[in-house]
Amino acid sequence: MDTFQQYLVEKTSYIEQHLLPALEQQGVPTQLYESMKYSLMAGGKRLRPMLVLAVLEALDKPMERGVPFAVALEMIHTYSLIHDDLPAMDDDDLRRGKPTNHKVFGEATAILAGDALLTRAFAYIAEAYQERSDVAPITTVKLIAELGKRAGATGMVGGQMADIEGEGKQLDLEQLEFIHRHKTGDLLVAALRGGGYLAEASEAQMDALTRYGVCIGLAFQIQDDILNVEGDAAELGKAVGSDADREKATYPLLLGLAESKDRLTALIAEAKAALADAGIEHSALSPLADYVQNRNK
Amino acid sequence: MDTFQQYLVEKTSYIEQHLLPALEQQGVPTQLYESMKYSLMAGGKRLRPMLVLAVLEALDKPMERGVPFAVALEMIHTYSLIHDDLPAMDDDDLRRGKPTNHKVFGEATAILAGDALLTRAFAYIAEAYQERSDVAPITTVKLIAELGKRAGATGMVGGQMADIEGEGKQLDLEQLEFIHRHKTGDLLVAALRGGGYLAEASEAQMDALTRYGVCIGLAFQIQDDILNVEGDAAELGKAVGSDADREKATYPLLLGLAESKDRLTALIAEAKAALADAGIEHSALSPLADYVQNRNK
Repeated sequence: MDTFQQYLVEKTSYIEQHLLPALEQQGVPTQLYESMKYSLMAGGKRLRPMLVLAVLEALDKPMERGVPFAVALEMIHTYSLIHDDLPAMDDDDLRRGKPTNHKVFGEATAILAGDALLTRAFAYIAEAYQERSDVAPITTVKLIAELGKRAGATGMVGGQMADIEGEGKQLDLEQLEFIHRHKTGDLLVAALRGGGYLAEASEAQMDALTRYGVCIGLAFQIQDDILNVEGDAAELGKAVGSDADREKATYPLLLGLAESKDRLTALIAEAKAALADAGIEHSALSPLADYVQNRNK
Repeated sequence: MDTFQQYLVEKTSYIEQHLLPALEQQGVPTQLYESMKYSLMAGGKRLRPMLVLAVLEALDKPMERGVPFAVALEMIHTYSLIHDDLPAMDDDDLRRGKPTNHKVFGEATAILAGDALLTRAFAYIAEAYQERSDVAPITTVKLIAELGKRAGATGMVGGQMADIEGEGKQLDLEQLEFIHRHKTGDLLVAALRGGGYLAEASEAQMDALTRYGVCIGLAFQIQDDILNVEGDAAELGKAVGSDADREKATYPLLLGLAESKDRLTALIAEAKAALADAGIEHSALSPLADYVQNRNK
């Protein structure tokens, strides 16, 4: 295992230790708690939390300062997957090789578990940072504003809406990029900018982190589309070729596989250039960009 | 029109002026924006926002300080109605005499509009109070923690979960009260406590506001149940007798109509006693308690 693989394993384990304690159990109906826990603990790359921690490290700040924000991002990512999988949305039965939330707990519970995770994300940021003397209340307020903007109608939810509206239609590249910039990219940007706020990054560093986030967000989605064509179903935990079956617009469909891969490479190069501008090119954010490109699930 | 009726009309209009400007439109898919707007502007009593403003008035603080929090509460109340009406939940076709959100926009959009309203509520509090010099960032953080706690798994969402789990079952009074305390009461309590934070209420006043909120929350639900038996369908904008049709546990079913009414009266008296304890019995919160009892819709 190389050093970066080791880094991923350690950070994933560190993040996962902090997820469950951030949920409330006392006073929560059992079925609701179990449903929230099921999806929050169902694995995954934990990429958004990892980005928060990596920004703090890159800017020589204590990593644990990022934990509440990192955990909140993972709650929001998880809620979005639960709702996206619902029959009225993408109607998926499997997620990461396991039955989707509504398949296990029923639709009503899945909707409520999503709602509760989304709500808890904001509450947890507000609660947890009140107890830390190294994070000023105005920073907490900025984290919440940033997360709300990137996760809501102008961000992730807007991207999902555009994705649903676009199904079965001929989309052009601009429309496809709108979807991915928001559906996937905005929450990654929130992770990076939130990390920046917590690390007291300069304006120039914030801009560079944002640029890095936008690039790896699009790159992430292009690689997702490529994996949906070329990937291994067992690794992915979902069917290969499902995008084509649904007549979903993808980068390979619009640009061809070869050009999609070129574009992916260019985006990763630009992400790294942004890191260099911020003087943090020797941090874990650099191999994290490669990882977005090279992952096989 | 008596003075309090006048008060309700004025405050409702004041609140409604501030709702739409709090939504973002730029960069939001049209369908999503229209769906959010449809439910947010579909009328209703605006009770939660009104409570925020009334607390500020009662404690001699400028009412407009409460507006962002009041608007956020109405967004959260609205999202909860959209999701509760979904086919997988209560499966309602009508709400306030109009087709429910998913009937107009489809299920996927209704789910996303709810998610976006919930997200916007927290973002709006964080954004709007950053611009007010009379609200300290730590107060904003407390508002968000309070709202998150009362709206999430330990609060409103937990109450809705318990309500769904209880359908078709024989519930006892304790279980029924758990549902209503959380499903309806917690957001009213959040309105009152949030108003208290914004008005720099003393600890004793916060306790009194909480007690008042718990009482009118239960009272509200008892009156809801009574109206479902005795009300006028045209006034209510929904069918009368629907609880009985669904074999839903209600106060009239468990206690009988007469005892339900006695209980309602006792709760309103206790709510007013709490106001007297806080020295704010001559505020609009007093007729607001009567209004909860006497409303016909």
